[in-house]
Amino acid sequence: MAQKTASKKAPITSPLADQDREITGKVLQGTLLDMIDLHLVAKQAHWNVVGRLFHDVHLHLDELVTTARGFADDVAERAAAIGISPDGRASTVADGSGVPKFDSNWRSDREVVQAITNTLAELNRRLRERIDETDKTDLVTQDLLIGIARELEKSHWMWQAQLAE
Amino acid sequence: MAQKTASKKAPITSPLADQDREITGKVLQGTLLDMIDLHLVAKQAHWNVVGRLFHDVHLHLDELVTTARGFADDVAERAAAIGISPDGRASTVADGSGVPKFDSNWRSDREVVQAITNTLAELNRRLRERIDETDKTDLVTQDLLIGIARELEKSHWMWQAQLAE
Amino acid sequence: MAQKTASKKAPITSPLADQDREITGKVLQGTLLDMIDLHLVAKQAHWNVVGRLFHDVHLHLDELVTTARGFADDVAERAAAIGISPDGRASTVADGSGVPKFDSNWRSDREVVQAITNTLAELNRRLRERIDETDKTDLVTQDLLIGIARELEKSHWMWQAQLAE
Amino acid sequence: MAQKTASKKAPITSPLADQDREITGKVLQGTLLDMIDLHLVAKQAHWNVVGRLFHDVHLHLDELVTTARGFADDVAERAAAIGISPDGRASTVADGSGVPKFDSNWRSDREVVQAITNTLAELNRRLRERIDETDKTDLVTQDLLIGIARELEKSHWMWQAQLAE
Amino acid sequence: MAQKTASKKAPITSPLADQDREITGKVLQGTLLDMIDLHLVAKQAHWNVVGRLFHDVHLHLDELVTTARGFADDVAERAAAIGISPDGRASTVADGSGVPKFDSNWRSDREVVQAITNTLAELNRRLRERIDETDKTDLVTQDLLIGIARELEKSHWMWQAQLAE
Amino acid sequence: MAQKTASKKAPITSPLADQDREITGKVLQGTLLDMIDLHLVAKQAHWNVVGRLFHDVHLHLDELVTTARGFADDVAERAAAIGISPDGRASTVADGSGVPKFDSNWRSDREVVQAITNTLAELNRRLRERIDETDKTDLVTQDLLIGIARELEKSHWMWQAQLAE
Amino acid sequence: MAQKTASKKAPITSPLADQDREITGKVLQGTLLDMIDLHLVAKQAHWNVVGRLFHDVHLHLDELVTTARGFADDVAERAAAIGISPDGRASTVADGSGVPKFDSNWRSDREVVQAITNTLAELNRRLRERIDETDKTDLVTQDLLIGIARELEKSHWMWQAQLAE
Amino acid sequence: MAQKTASKKAPITSPLADQDREITGKVLQGTLLDMIDLHLVAKQAHWNVVGRLFHDVHLHLDELVTTARGFADDVAERAAAIGISPDGRASTVADGSGVPKFDSNWRSDREVVQAITNTLAELNRRLRERIDETDKTDLVTQDLLIGIARELEKSHWMWQAQLAE
Amino acid sequence: MAQKTASKKAPITSPLADQDREITGKVLQGTLLDMIDLHLVAKQAHWNVVGRLFHDVHLHLDELVTTARGFADDVAERAAAIGISPDGRASTVADGSGVPKFDSNWRSDREVVQAITNTLAELNRRLRERIDETDKTDLVTQDLLIGIARELEKSHWMWQAQLAE
Amino acid sequence: MAQKTASKKAPITSPLADQDREITGKVLQGTLLDMIDLHLVAKQAHWNVVGRLFHDVHLHLDELVTTARGFADDVAERAAAIGISPDGRASTVADGSGVPKFDSNWRSDREVVQAITNTLAELNRRLRERIDETDKTDLVTQDLLIGIARELEKSHWMWQAQLAE
Amino acid sequence: MAQKTASKKAPITSPLADQDREITGKVLQGTLLDMIDLHLVAKQAHWNVVGRLFHDVHLHLDELVTTARGFADDVAERAAAIGISPDGRASTVADGSGVPKFDSNWRSDREVVQAITNTLAELNRRLRERIDETDKTDLVTQDLLIGIARELEKSHWMWQAQLAE
Amino acid sequence: MAQKTASKKAPITSPLADQDREITGKVLQGTLLDMIDLHLVAKQAHWNVVGRLFHDVHLHLDELVTTARGFADDVAERAAAIGISPDGRASTVADGSGVPKFDSNWRSDREVVQAITNTLAELNRRLRERIDETDKTDLVTQDLLIGIARELEKSHWMWQAQLAE
Repeated sequence: MAQKTASKKAPITSPLADQDREITGKVLQGTLLDMIDLHLVAKQAHWNVVGRLFHDVHLHLDELVTTARGFADDVAERAAAIGISPDGRASTVADGSGVPKFDSNWRSDREVVQAITNTLAELNRRLRERIDETDKTDLVTQDLLIGIARELEKSHWMWQAQLAE
Repeated sequence: MAQKTASKKAPITSPLADQDREITGKVLQGTLLDMIDLHLVAKQAHWNVVGRLFHDVHLHLDELVTTARGFADDVAERAAAIGISPDGRASTVADGSGVPKFDSNWRSDREVVQAITNTLAELNRRLRERIDETDKTDLVTQDLLIGIARELEKSHWMWQAQLAE
Repeated sequence: MAQKTASKKAPITSPLADQDREITGKVLQGTLLDMIDLHLVAKQAHWNVVGRLFHDVHLHLDELVTTARGFADDVAERAAAIGISPDGRASTVADGSGVPKFDSNWRSDREVVQAITNTLAELNRRLRERIDETDKTDLVTQDLLIGIARELEKSHWMWQAQLAE
Repeated sequence: MAQKTASKKAPITSPLADQDREITGKVLQGTLLDMIDLHLVAKQAHWNVVGRLFHDVHLHLDELVTTARGFADDVAERAAAIGISPDGRASTVADGSGVPKFDSNWRSDREVVQAITNTLAELNRRLRERIDETDKTDLVTQDLLIGIARELEKSHWMWQAQLAE
Repeated sequence: MAQKTASKKAPITSPLADQDREITGKVLQGTLLDMIDLHLVAKQAHWNVVGRLFHDVHLHLDELVTTARGFADDVAERAAAIGISPDGRASTVADGSGVPKFDSNWRSDREVVQAITNTLAELNRRLRERIDETDKTDLVTQDLLIGIARELEKSHWMWQAQLAE
Repeated sequence: MAQKTASKKAPITSPLADQDREITGKVLQGTLLDMIDLHLVAKQAHWNVVGRLFHDVHLHLDELVTTARGFADDVAERAAAIGISPDGRASTVADGSGVPKFDSNWRSDREVVQAITNTLAELNRRLRERIDETDKTDLVTQDLLIGIARELEKSHWMWQAQLAE
Repeated sequence: MAQKTASKKAPITSPLADQDREITGKVLQGTLLDMIDLHLVAKQAHWNVVGRLFHDVHLHLDELVTTARGFADDVAERAAAIGISPDGRASTVADGSGVPKFDSNWRSDREVVQAITNTLAELNRRLRERIDETDKTDLVTQDLLIGIARELEKSHWMWQAQLAE
Repeated sequence: MAQKTASKKAPITSPLADQDREITGKVLQGTLLDMIDLHLVAKQAHWNVVGRLFHDVHLHLDELVTTARGFADDVAERAAAIGISPDGRASTVADGSGVPKFDSNWRSDREVVQAITNTLAELNRRLRERIDETDKTDLVTQDLLIGIARELEKSHWMWQAQLAE
Repeated sequence: MAQKTASKKAPITSPLADQDREITGKVLQGTLLDMIDLHLVAKQAHWNVVGRLFHDVHLHLDELVTTARGFADDVAERAAAIGISPDGRASTVADGSGVPKFDSNWRSDREVVQAITNTLAELNRRLRERIDETDKTDLVTQDLLIGIARELEKSHWMWQAQLAE
Repeated sequence: MAQKTASKKAPITSPLADQDREITGKVLQGTLLDMIDLHLVAKQAHWNVVGRLFHDVHLHLDELVTTARGFADDVAERAAAIGISPDGRASTVADGSGVPKFDSNWRSDREVVQAITNTLAELNRRLRERIDETDKTDLVTQDLLIGIARELEKSHWMWQAQLAE
Repeated sequence: MAQKTASKKAPITSPLADQDREITGKVLQGTLLDMIDLHLVAKQAHWNVVGRLFHDVHLHLDELVTTARGFADDVAERAAAIGISPDGRASTVADGSGVPKFDSNWRSDREVVQAITNTLAELNRRLRERIDETDKTDLVTQDLLIGIARELEKSHWMWQAQLAE
Repeated sequence: MAQKTASKKAPITSPLADQDREITGKVLQGTLLDMIDLHLVAKQAHWNVVGRLFHDVHLHLDELVTTARGFADDVAERAAAIGISPDGRASTVADGSGVPKFDSNWRSDREVVQAITNTLAELNRRLRERIDETDKTDLVTQDLLIGIARELEKSHWMWQAQLAE
């Protein structure tokens, strides 16, 4: 089996040189974990939010779920396209995602808005770093990350706006 | 804060008696973990499958992703409806799901078809047990589980059929 | 005329034995009145709600109107299918519905959310009883009622969640 | 509480002078009851019609239900827009609607066509009076009523046409 | 060849114990023949009906065709899901369906309405028996049959209603 | 009854002379049986196919089902339009269709592709003969058959292409 | 101006020889008048029909209007394509159409069905002649006429079927 | 027959007094002829226009056809609704429409734009008169005519704008 | 150039007498400025609102933007139709609109709701005056303004309802 | 390899006799090249047209692109269906198409309209010949070509109409 | 109030450092004014264009309106996302936009095409400068501006192409 | 003519300096030929593939056709936008495309998958070079090429994945 696995290592060739491929691959794998965890946490909040604004926040969260799922797909398929096998299994996500801890149980709408705002701020910080890292390794991946950052920075504004008094 | 959390324990009342609610809640929470993990694993396979049947299996897996995501939502919202806070966070899924381990890295179409078939067989076995458990506690939940079983047993046939020579 | 009316008594035959038909018919007629009144009250609230959450609650109520109207149709057509003439006229609804009194005039969003939550709790309680009653008389009707209960218990959660502080 | 209710009396200001508002409000409230009762009666007929033309009449009635529901919404929202709280609850409808009595039980297609034709004739007569009443009080409301009359006089033709031999 | 066929006997495993699988399989195979024949007969009537109500009955029959085709698919795929090969070939249908004989040649609308009403009554009687048979063998199949019965008993009402004078 | 049936013999007059009508009628009735049997057999294969290509073949067969059903309708309605009562009942199909025997039980994807290819070749051969027969009797029917032949010869290519090694 | 008009006589060249173009042009112009008059008459009937079957016939007529309008367009544009200016003005239609006289005033559903049936029979007779005339002059036009005949002979069946007792 | 026709004179009763009904009926009948002729002429131009702007004018004319057909329906159905049988047959249109003569044969785009502009100016002049006539007889009809005038005066601007140099 | 401009003064003729055209033209021009400014202010608020109700108010404002844009188009095209060139350029709007000043910078949801409510009240007051002014000059324009008033008075209710405590 | 290629020569059998297949195959291959080149040239014009009518011609050309692409597919698939491998590669098109030379560089709208008109005239001439050639070899192919001719002769009229002064 | 406004200064935090945020903010605010003015001017032209190409230009302008409105939204929301309050009020637009003056009154199609071409050339020039300015301050904003430039440079080609003789 | 052509040389001005325009223009013209040839070759394969995976590969190829056609349009229109006349005629494509030779005749699915994979690898290599070339000449074009590369590198993965054993 080992031999077979070995020979299977690179069924997909890469348009990138080896080093660029390695760096870009790490960036994509890290972003994948963030995006998967983001949609799991947004769903968790979607189900557990309570409070006067339940209905509005419940709907708003589903927009975020859809966004995050689409980006997870884009990022994983970009990894595959450069010859990197993406790993988006539950345990890998649980171990490696950059999403801050989200407490279990019912959560007030206020807490949810704060938690989502914080999460997006943190993920955007990580995205900005990755945009820098890919500047020399793969412009195609960088362009994808810029597109994600634009959307998630917009989402951050929309969630943070709800915290203003 | 502790006090507040305490008072928040039951913002949602239940149409069920306490014991029925407890048993039904466990059944739903278990099913939720299975459904979330199922769509994560199906996506993992969707990205990592290789082989002559890549295109067909890649598309077939996305049908399963859609199915599993819909059921995860149904099950979590049923839990909320009976006053149980559902927990679908990555670490909870990683710890508690009944989905068999799915190896990382590129996987041949043959391996993927086998793995998905096994996964569905196992999840259906668990669903059957849960249908029995809810027979006395909550007919509404049982009806939901029966609907899930019908769809996933059908999926099992469609994946297993690909194993015949 | 009386004779003609008499001869018209049973233009629709029943798949049920007489006693099962009678019990099931009462259950369906009672549910019909509840569902019609539910959509009338939800519309009344839709038009009379005021307060900071006007827009969100106004829209949320229309989802409930649509749901209740669909169930009224399902229930009335099930009655017809077992040979029972359904009665959904305004005076019959006014006299026999189980929906708690809803005060006239403008109502604050808070009052509306409380009133709808109470209404759904009461209607769900009645549905649970009817599910029991039909267990021995008509599984087809029972299955329909289980489907209604699943949806309205979910609605109850969504409205009650707005009462949490 | 009484004080609070009192202070809530006019959360919505009116574009009309007090007397115009009062007259127009009565016209709209009356029309609202007619429209709600019309859709309840049309549904009642939809479920209880029998006879050779069952299928065609059954479908035709649902067009009337849709029409009447839309007008009920328009009229109630117009009332709110001029600062009048609309009342469309079942008992108010039962007491105040201008729809002629519609007998319970199964009804032949012939009887249904006759009853709907009569109902529409009566409601149109009332609408014409209301169009006159609003000529001096509110042209906006009058325009809405003219639109309703155009549609319901058209419906009347379509139902009466079925009575010709 | 015989050996190969033998080895192919069970490419699809069953979630049911052997005896439950056998009983449920027979129930599903019987229902499959009824549903296929129902849509063939409804099409036959669709093409051969004549009389004043031709147009309305012609359209009404196509609704029944669509319904029956959907159920044939559901039932056959349920059979496959429990490891039973479904048989829906023309000669099997001709030999084993429970649909009463439908005469060839042009048929008056009255005759068609009567024949379809009788057919639905007979098929519903058979469905009720099958619902009982599956109560102990497979709740998932039972739930499917209950759903079919609800729809076809509703269809029966709609066709029988046309026979009332 | 016999008398009544007799007098009903020709409710639909024909745009064709008697002999042309008779020949064209036979051609259409034969094609109708072929088309109905084709969709029954395609559905049978849809449910019973197994093998690595299950998913792709399963979907491909449903395209054929849709095509065959549409042509069955066209052909039967053309028969009616020239005053011929079409007969598409199960036993007539079982006795008179030109579709080669399709074995029961699970079938490998290879066997299915071969069987469908053979079936289409045979039906196309019969269509070509019928196109010749109608050249002198009814150009309208001939035009319809040419359209069917174009589509089914295209289907034949698509299925036969799968047999190439 | 006259000179200019003269020079404008043939802005569109023809793919046909002069004589073929002349014969085919007459055939198309005649069919155009028939199709325009058919949709005017069908609309006239749509507005003036009364009787128990008003609703069904009213809808059925609008299907015919749509069909006839589509064919009028096809035929006129075919004329233009072969260099013949089509003439579909009201007076030309009034003078040259082959549609039998349709009396003014309200008409019973029975009368309408009879009149439409007769009209379609007459138009189909004319179409058959034109199909023959174009056999030697323009196969493209003939093919268009065959397509129209297939649809209108089908319509004829559907209307005549309503005359059977 | 005469007697029967006589008795059929008024199958549809009117919401208007006799004199109002007569005046309004004439107004509607006149508008009906204008609208039918407008769509026939617009189609005639659609088929016969030539010149550099052929494609644009050809499409623009079809918008006018759709508009005019919709108004013809509205006007005819309004006539029926007030108990007046509308007459939209080709010869009645040819005799009574107010549309200026439109010459046969190919027409330059310039000529077409001029002719349509003139036609719309004339029809709008007639509409304005009819709006005055119905001011005292039927506000519902007047409202319909105002809506038509708004749309056709807008069309007039759009066609006249093309004449500016 | 001046001469050319002069000759271009009236490319569009008017259905109105000169004085009516002048008065109606002013009314329409004034309404145009109000509607354009309304959609600019609603967009301004859409981008700058902050507070707990951000998401709901953000969406609600976009409904108002769509409404106002549609009315701006209707009003400008009505002006053109009566031969008046509409002016909707930024500086004309800035100088002549009746919309109250809307402060720059981030605005709390409460402030926004208050500002939009005031704006709608003021615009509706102006609309009512214009409806009076056009009563004698152009019923078609008046009818358009009545339609706008109905919609914006409804919007006013919906925004004011959010101010109630 | 040569041997393998040899054995692959006829994976698709033909419904036609050898000689008919050869003649029909040449006709189809020739038409395929014309259709592919037509859509390449139409796209070329779409990108390079300039002049006052740019926008209109630019859009009109895309309709032609869509039409030509659809026909290329139909023709190639018909070739495959009769066992002929179609060849639509760039160099084959460049060598064998019947489309007249289209100059490179920007082209005035007038030049484009003239060039497209000429191209369509030439392609239609070739189509007419092919319709004759297939009359004895394959009616199914002939019917397809007739359909193409009808559409492209219509296109020719629409483009030529723009050349009239 | 001042204090409150002060404290409200930064409800939205920025992902950018202060200086980058300031420069990027100015770029976005400038682009916002250009985009709003572009859609106001395009609408102005849409309403005031006259000439032979009225219809085509009128439609073409609405495509530009839609494009410009979408970009205004994108740009304003990007400003908000980086913590800058966007200002799109009428007077700010009138004072600060880079759109060249567009004269009032009716304009010939030729003048309009020239004016729009000039406007797009000027706005594109400004966009190119802003793309340079954001190269060091915010790649996300730069990417947005590049997307706008691509679309507006394409629009410029399409409008300029109409000026070629 | 030469003079005219000369004067026509630059109907479209460029946002780029001359040298940048020249380099960017070559890059775009080269990419245009690649994209056109890609969709011709993908169609060629779509029609000529045979083998067990025919149906799946046939469908997969059409996705590539759609992708390549869209990019050809984007690239040609970008060339026009910078003032370069694009050339996409068959002979130019045949002479200048970078797509590897694709053999004529029927091709096994295996051969097709290999050929498409090789083609995409080669085209992606060329795209990467062009992304570098445009870095200094036109960021807008570069951004477009990056988007194409992202999509075609993804396609390459999907086709290469099918080659893994």
